[in-house]
Amino acid sequence: MITPKYHIFVCTSCRPDGKQQGFCAAKGSAGLVGKFMEEIEDRELSGDVMLTNTGCFGICDKGPVAVVYPEGIWYGGLNEDAIEEIMEKHIEGGTPVEKYLI
Amino acid sequence: MITPKYHIFVCTSCRPDGKQQGFCAAKGSAGLVGKFMEEIEDRELSGDVMLTNTGCFGICDKGPVAVVYPEGIWYGGLNEDAIEEIMEKHIEGGTPVEKYLI
Repeated sequence: MITPKYHIFVCTSCRPDGKQQGFCAAKGSAGLVGKFMEEIEDRELSGDVMLTNTGCFGICDKGPVAVVYPEGIWYGGLNEDAIEEIMEKHIEGGTPVEKYLI
Repeated sequence: MITPKYHIFVCTSCRPDGKQQGFCAAKGSAGLVGKFMEEIEDRELSGDVMLTNTGCFGICDKGPVAVVYPEGIWYGGLNEDAIEEIMEKHIEGGTPVEKYLI
């Protein structure tokens, strides 16, 4: 396998304990995966960026959550605007977006 | 968030297209997550190693699959013995285990 330049992992978990309202899936994270996919395609970064959905990272209160490797940069409170900014400044520009760091 | 020394991502996906027998979930990947958890605890590495289950990486024929960051080392064909060896030689010893690389 060729390791991508960036591998973005997005929590889409909905932990089955009856408190779903607090978890990433309930905060629209599946739609945010779609937004990441769209941005990756639009920016023609499919060869450089891999996107994978994940189970729970255990920090549900900070969701929707994503982590970007290889740096291990954690983002929280994501929405569509955040994703555009992360794609532009971090994934294309190389500088993590401070205001969404957790 | 403190980025762990190693972050192990294990595919536990079962893509819903009717061909489940070929996918990581059908090859026992959920049990392998349990095996990784056990190994991490037994080796007292909980502070250094994070473990997360994921959706499909798109390389189902090589499953069960895991990727270890920050290096971006891909493993396939995993079983319990493979996990013990990866934990000992790679996660504790720092050297990826060649025979499971994909």
